[in-house]
Amino acid sequence: MKAVLLSIGDEILIGQITNTNSVWLASQLNRIGVHVVEMMTVGDDETAIVDALKESLSKSEIIIITGGLGPTRDDLTKDVLTHFFHTRLVFNQQVYDLLNTFFTSRGMSFNEPNKTQCYVPESCKVMMNYKGTAPGMLFHENHKIVASMPGVPYEMEAMAEGELFPYLRQHFQMPPILHRTFLTGGIPESELMIRLFDWENDLPADLKLAYLPSGGQVRLRLTSNNEDGNALERIENASRYLHLILDNEIVGYDEDSIASVVQQLCIQHGKTLVTAESCTGGFIAHQLTMIPGASKYFKGSIVAYHNTIKESLLDVPSDILLEFGAVSEQTVIQMAVSARRIMKADYAIAVSGIAGPEGGSPEKPVGTVWIAWASDEQTVARKFVWGKNRQATIQRTAQEALFRFRRFVLGMDL
Amino acid sequence: MKAVLLSIGDEILIGQITNTNSVWLASQLNRIGVHVVEMMTVGDDETAIVDALKESLSKSEIIIITGGLGPTRDDLTKDVLTHFFHTRLVFNQQVYDLLNTFFTSRGMSFNEPNKTQCYVPESCKVMMNYKGTAPGMLFHENHKIVASMPGVPYEMEAMAEGELFPYLRQHFQMPPILHRTFLTGGIPESELMIRLFDWENDLPADLKLAYLPSGGQVRLRLTSNNEDGNALERIENASRYLHLILDNEIVGYDEDSIASVVQQLCIQHGKTLVTAESCTGGFIAHQLTMIPGASKYFKGSIVAYHNTIKESLLDVPSDILLEFGAVSEQTVIQMAVSARRIMKADYAIAVSGIAGPEGGSPEKPVGTVWIAWASDEQTVARKFVWGKNRQATIQRTAQEALFRFRRFVLGMDL
Repeated sequence: MKAVLLSIGDEILIGQITNTNSVWLASQLNRIGVHVVEMMTVGDDETAIVDALKESLSKSEIIIITGGLGPTRDDLTKDVLTHFFHTRLVFNQQVYDLLNTFFTSRGMSFNEPNKTQCYVPESCKVMMNYKGTAPGMLFHENHKIVASMPGVPYEMEAMAEGELFPYLRQHFQMPPILHRTFLTGGIPESELMIRLFDWENDLPADLKLAYLPSGGQVRLRLTSNNEDGNALERIENASRYLHLILDNEIVGYDEDSIASVVQQLCIQHGKTLVTAESCTGGFIAHQLTMIPGASKYFKGSIVAYHNTIKESLLDVPSDILLEFGAVSEQTVIQMAVSARRIMKADYAIAVSGIAGPEGGSPEKPVGTVWIAWASDEQTVARKFVWGKNRQATIQRTAQEALFRFRRFVLGMDL
Repeated sequence: MKAVLLSIGDEILIGQITNTNSVWLASQLNRIGVHVVEMMTVGDDETAIVDALKESLSKSEIIIITGGLGPTRDDLTKDVLTHFFHTRLVFNQQVYDLLNTFFTSRGMSFNEPNKTQCYVPESCKVMMNYKGTAPGMLFHENHKIVASMPGVPYEMEAMAEGELFPYLRQHFQMPPILHRTFLTGGIPESELMIRLFDWENDLPADLKLAYLPSGGQVRLRLTSNNEDGNALERIENASRYLHLILDNEIVGYDEDSIASVVQQLCIQHGKTLVTAESCTGGFIAHQLTMIPGASKYFKGSIVAYHNTIKESLLDVPSDILLEFGAVSEQTVIQMAVSARRIMKADYAIAVSGIAGPEGGSPEKPVGTVWIAWASDEQTVARKFVWGKNRQATIQRTAQEALFRFRRFVLGMDL
C-alpha cells in the first residue's frame, strides 16, 4: 500500500512552523506496512489543494491530509473535500454531543464558530476528535482512501491512533516493511563508508543501506520490502557481520537516541547521573528527561549560567575563574567534581563553553567548549571547537557529552 | 517569483528525521520575496526524483533541492541531475583544493569516496561547501533555476546564504512579501475569532489573516503581496485596531517567541531570573538560553528531578514532601522562594509535575503540574492538568510558565 502525506497551511510554506505531523505519520505508517512515497505541502488555497489531491490520487491508494480544519476562515479543507467528493455538509449529532461535553467540561462557551464544526460531509466516515474541536473525515471510494485530520499534532496523533490506523488495518492486509537501524557516533560518514565497503557490496539484493548523518552521529539503516517473507533472517545475518566490523562503535538500534542509550546504560549498571551545565543551559538535562523513566537514574542538574552560580552552587573557586576563565579545563573539572559530590551521584557531566554570538576572543573563539566526565575513580576533560552557530553548538555539545559519556562508562578511549 | 522546495531522502519518508531544511529555506526565501508554493519530499529513487523535478518545473521558476548529495551509494541527486540536464561530470580543481584543505586541516584522510565529490556536472555553476564535503550545483536554463544543496542543515544554510541567495537577488527583482505576526497566549482560537470578527471583516482585500495555534499560544498573521506598494500602511492601520481590541494580550511580534519576550521584559526592567525545575527537567532554562543574550538576565537553574535534590539544594522540608507530595502548591512555592534566594535573582519560576507515563494517582493523574512565580513582593502558584503525553506536558508547562511569568511581571491576572 502506498500513501501520500498532504499537509495544508500557508504557515508551513512561509517557514513559520515545522511540519512535524509528516514525520510522525510516516514513522507510524511504516510500522503498519504502509509505504509513504511522497510528502507534499501546499497553501490554504482551493486550486492548490485540489491539484495536490488529484496528483496524490494518481500515485497512491491512501492520501492523508493534515491541517486546514479549524473554525476560522483561512481553513478550507472541509469545504474543498465536500466539493471534491460531490457531497454536502450535514449536521452530526455525535460530533455535537462530543463538542458540547468538550466545552462545558472546560467551562468554555460552545460558541457559533465552534458549532460549524458539527457539520460534516454526508458521504464520509467521521473520525472523532477527543482532544480538540475539529472532527476528521475519511472518504473511501473507488478503492482509495482520503483521510483528513486536524493540523494540531496531539489532536492528529490521537485521531490517527484511535480511528485512522484501525480502519486501515481492518481494510487492508499489509506486510510490514522491515528496517534495522544502527546508531554510531564519532565516525565520519565517509570513513564509515570505507570500513563498510566490502560488507555493503556483499549485502543481499533486497537489503538497501542508507547513511543518515546528523551532527556527530551517523545512523546506518538496512531496509527490505520483505517480499519473500525471509528478510528478517538476512537482516540478522548482515547485522552479525556489521558487529564484527564496527564492534563497540555501534551504540544503539532503531529508535534509540544517545539519551536513551545513556539511560539504559546507567540503569543496567545501577548508577546515577547528574549534570552541571553552563553554555548548554539545561539542554543535556532536557534531552535526558524527555525519555520516560529518566527518574530511575537522573537526579538533577545545576545550570550555572552565571559565574556567580558556578562559585556559589558548584564551588568553583573565584581564583580559578579569574586565572583560567569560565571556559577552561580547570573550571569544567571542578564543576563535574562538585556536581557529583553535591548531588550525590555516581557520575557527573559538566559543560562550559561560548555558544555565542558574543563572548568570543582570539584565544577562545565562539564555539569553544570544554566537557568533563566524572566518576568515583577519575575525572576527564576534553576541549572542542565548534562553529559560530549558537543552536548548533548547544546541540553538538550535548551530543558529544553523551556519546563520550558512554565511552567513559565503558572504559573506552575518549 | 515562485519556488518549489524538493527534499530527497528515504529517511524523511519513513519518518526517521524531521525535514527542518524546508522550514528554514521557506522563511529565508519569503524574506527576499520568493513565494514558496509547494514543498515536496521524495525518496532516493531516480524515477521519483525526475518526476518531482518535472512537476516542480511546471509550477515554479525556482526549484531548490536538498539532500542526496553524500559520497555514499544511496545518494543519487548528482547523477540524476547530470542526466536530467544532458551534461557530464567533470573534475573541478577548486572543489578539490577546498576538500583537500578541509580534510588535512582536520587531520583526516582525503579518501577515495570523498574524491568523487570533486566531479561536478559540466553545465552547472558550482556552489562551494565551506562547512562540509559535498559541493552544491546551480543550473540556470530557460529562465528557470534548479539548485541542489546538501541535506545537512548547517552545510545547506551556509551554502544558501553564501551562494544561492546572492545569485537569486542578483538575477531577479523581487518585491518582498509583507507579513506581520502577533503572538498571543492563553486565548483559544475560537474565542479570538469571535473577538476579531468585525475587525477581520473590515480588513482591506489584500490583507489575508491566518490563525496559527500551537499549544496554548496563537499567532495571528497578516499577509499582503503588496502589489501596489502601499500595503505596509494598511498593515500598520489594521495593527492599530487590533491593539485596541486585544490590548495587553498581544505578547510579541513576528519572530518573537515567549522566551524572547521574557528576555526583552527582564532586560528592560533590569531584573534577573532563575528557574527551579522538576518535571520540565531543564526545558524552561533551555528555551530561555537558546536566545542569544540570555546571559544578560538569566542566572541559572536548579533541575531538582529527584526529591533528594529538592531537599538538599532547594530547602524543601522533608515533611512538606511527605505531607503534600512533590507535586503540590506547598512544594512548588518553596522551590520558587528558595531558588530566588539561593541564586540571588529578582524573579524565580518553579515547576513540579507528573509528566508520565508513570507516577500518576487518582488524586494526581499524569499531567498534573504546579507552577509558581516568585518576586520580592509575592509568590503565586497555579495548578494545571494536561494530558497523558509526556512531551506535550513538558512543552505546554514551559509555555504556560513563561506566558504567565510575563503577566506576573506586568501585574496582570494570572
